[in-house]
Amino acid sequence: MDKNSAPSKIGILGGGQLGRMLLQEAANYTVETWVMENDDQCPAAHLCHHFVKGDIKNFNDVYAFGKKLDALTIEIENVNTEALEKLESEGVKIYPHPSVLKTIRNKILQKEYYKKHEIPTPEFRVTANLDELKEAADFLPAVHKIGEGGYDGRGVQLLKEREDLAKGFDVPSVLEKMVVIDKEIALMVGVNDKGETAVYPPVEMSFDKDLNLLDYQLCPALLDEKILWKIEAIALAVVRNFKSPGIFAVELFVDRKGDVLVNETAPRVHNSGHHTIEAHFSSQFDMLWRIMLGYPLGNTAAILSSIMINIIGAEGSSGDVIYEGLDEILKIENAFVHLYGKKQTKPGRKMGHVTIVSREKQDLTHKANIVKRKLKAKA
Amino acid sequence: MDKNSAPSKIGILGGGQLGRMLLQEAANYTVETWVMENDDQCPAAHLCHHFVKGDIKNFNDVYAFGKKLDALTIEIENVNTEALEKLESEGVKIYPHPSVLKTIRNKILQKEYYKKHEIPTPEFRVTANLDELKEAADFLPAVHKIGEGGYDGRGVQLLKEREDLAKGFDVPSVLEKMVVIDKEIALMVGVNDKGETAVYPPVEMSFDKDLNLLDYQLCPALLDEKILWKIEAIALAVVRNFKSPGIFAVELFVDRKGDVLVNETAPRVHNSGHHTIEAHFSSQFDMLWRIMLGYPLGNTAAILSSIMINIIGAEGSSGDVIYEGLDEILKIENAFVHLYGKKQTKPGRKMGHVTIVSREKQDLTHKANIVKRKLKAKA
Repeated sequence: MDKNSAPSKIGILGGGQLGRMLLQEAANYTVETWVMENDDQCPAAHLCHHFVKGDIKNFNDVYAFGKKLDALTIEIENVNTEALEKLESEGVKIYPHPSVLKTIRNKILQKEYYKKHEIPTPEFRVTANLDELKEAADFLPAVHKIGEGGYDGRGVQLLKEREDLAKGFDVPSVLEKMVVIDKEIALMVGVNDKGETAVYPPVEMSFDKDLNLLDYQLCPALLDEKILWKIEAIALAVVRNFKSPGIFAVELFVDRKGDVLVNETAPRVHNSGHHTIEAHFSSQFDMLWRIMLGYPLGNTAAILSSIMINIIGAEGSSGDVIYEGLDEILKIENAFVHLYGKKQTKPGRKMGHVTIVSREKQDLTHKANIVKRKLKAKA
Repeated sequence: MDKNSAPSKIGILGGGQLGRMLLQEAANYTVETWVMENDDQCPAAHLCHHFVKGDIKNFNDVYAFGKKLDALTIEIENVNTEALEKLESEGVKIYPHPSVLKTIRNKILQKEYYKKHEIPTPEFRVTANLDELKEAADFLPAVHKIGEGGYDGRGVQLLKEREDLAKGFDVPSVLEKMVVIDKEIALMVGVNDKGETAVYPPVEMSFDKDLNLLDYQLCPALLDEKILWKIEAIALAVVRNFKSPGIFAVELFVDRKGDVLVNETAPRVHNSGHHTIEAHFSSQFDMLWRIMLGYPLGNTAAILSSIMINIIGAEGSSGDVIYEGLDEILKIENAFVHLYGKKQTKPGRKMGHVTIVSREKQDLTHKANIVKRKLKAKA
C-alpha cells in the first residue's frame, strides 16, 4: 500500500513524558501532530505541530480537539470518554477504543473484565464503602484499590490485619487478596486495526516498597520457558478480548507455585516499555505510530538486553529541579539518559529515566546500582 | 558538576532534516530550543520551543536571533558569519566558531587550510575565472569546485580533457587533481569546549555517479588497520587545527596506494553520521548536545554494524511526495525509517533515510539493495 501525500492528523490527550517520547518518534514519519494539555509548559507541548491548551477531562474541550483529527490517542487514562465515544461514532479513530478506557480506568470493571474472560487475576471482592470493607476481615491480608482515580501508587492501601481496615477507602473499591509474589512482570503488546498483535519480551520489575514506584526493570525477564509461554498467552488473552487496536502494558505476578496472575493493564504507552527506545528494533512509541498510521507492525525483538531506572524526585525536596550526579551518569558508556524537561521536582515525581544496554546481565545491574546511588533529582 | 535548574537556551540556524534530528535528541535533555529558518513549514519548525521566521544569511536576523541565546549552532554552512562573530564577541557560544565556517564554506580557503597544516589533500590550483582555468590543461583530469555556494553536488564539475575546460566556473574556484579512488571514507569527530575529542568509527561511502549523491554508506568501513590509523590521525589533525568545539564530518579518499587524502570537511552534523542514531551509543546529534550543554562526551562505539541509504527524490518527478514501497521497507525487521516531513519532492532532494543494523555484513548490503530498489519518493 502506498501512502498518499497528505499526512495523517493525529492528536494526543495529555502532554507528559509519554507524549514527549511519542512525539520524538513521530518525527521519523510524516504525521501532523496535536497535543492537548492544560499546561503549555508541559513536557510534550513544544514537540507537536499544534498545541491546544485545554482540559482533557472536559467534554467540550476533548470533542473540539478531536473533531479535526483523523485519529486520537491518550497518554493517561483519565480523559473524557464520552467525547471520545462521540468522536468515534463520527469516524475519528481512537486508540484504544473508549470502551477499553472505561473498563480499565475503573479497577472494579477491570477486575470484572478479567473474571468474565477467565483471565487469572488475584481473587477479589468489590467494596462499596468502608462499612462493607469492615466486614471483609476474613479476606485479609489484602490490597484495597480505589475504583476510580488511583495513579502511580496513590489510591492503593495495604491491609494486613483487622486493625488496618479503617485505612481503606470509603468509595467503591476492589479488595484484592494478597499474593505471595515471586516476580513482577510486565509486557507490552501492540494491536493494529486488523487485530494483528506484536508482543514484546517480558520485563522483570523491581519495586521500591516504600513509594510503590518502580525501582528498576530488567529486559528480558529471567523466566522458565513454560512460565514465559503462560505470560504471553495470558497477556494476549487480556489484550485480544478488548477487541481494540492500540498499545497495551499488561502487568502480571508470578507466584511461588509458578502461577501467573494479571495485576493490571494500561491501554497506552507505559513506563514499563521505556527501555524499548534504545534496546529494541521498534520501540513502544514507534509501534503506536505504526499502528495509528496503518503501517506494518514493528519488530519487538531486543537488540541488546537492558535495564531501566526511573529518575524520581527525591524525598523531602520540592522546587526547581537540579540533577545531582548527572555528569557521572552521562559518562557511563552504555547508558542513555532521558530527562523529561519538568521544571519542578517533588517527592516521587517521575523526572526522567536511564536505560542501560549490554550483552552482560551483571553489567546491567552493576550500572543500574550506580545510577540509583549517584543520580538525584532534587530542588 | 551539577546542572542548575535554568535550562540552556540554544538555537539552530536552519530548519532542515539535520535540525529535525537534532531536536528529536534534544528532548532527552532539558535544553530550551530555538530554530530560525525562512519557511515555517520546514522539517524542524514544529520540534523546537521557539520558531523564528528569518533569513539565516541576513546580519540583522541572525544577530537578533542569537542575542537572547546561550549558544548557537548551524545545520548549514551558508549563514551570516559576521553576525555570528559579533555574537561570539558578546559572549554567545558558537558551535563551530564562525572563523571555521568562513574557512570551510569557501573551498579555496578550505584547501589552503589543509595545505597550511600539512594535511594531505588532492593537489590543487586556485582559478580566479574561466580564463585562468583555460590555462590549466596540464592539470587535467581534474575536478573544478566553485569557491563559494556549492552544495550536494552543485558547483562541482568534472573536467577530463581540454575540451571540458569551458564547462568550468567563471568565478574563484579550486581545480583539484583527479585522484584514482579506492575508497571514499567519512568520519565524525566531536570536540568539546576543553578541546577533548570523540572519534566515531569511519564509514565507507558508495556514491551515485550520476547525481554525485550518496548511494549507501557502510559502518564500520572495511579497512586495513594501518589505513584506519592514518584516517583517524588525519581527521584529528583537520579538526584540532580549527581550535573550535563542535561536531565535524571529515570526508577522505583512500587511493590505490593506500594513501589517505582529505576531500572536504563539514563543521556540523552530517549525512554521513545518520546511522549513529540507532547503531551507536551516542549519536552525532546526541554528541553535539552533550558538547553544547557542557556534558561529558558520548560513546562513539557501534552497538551493531550498519548501513544507511538516503531516500532521494526520484528523477523526473516533482510535487507532493508519495513514498512508494514504504510498507515493504517498514516490514524489514532491522530497518529504521526516517522521513523528513518535506511536503514536496523534486529530483535529487533528500527526503529521508533508512538505516539497517545487523551483526552480518551480507545482511546489510542485501537489505540496502532492497531499500534502493523498492522505496521511491516521487510525486
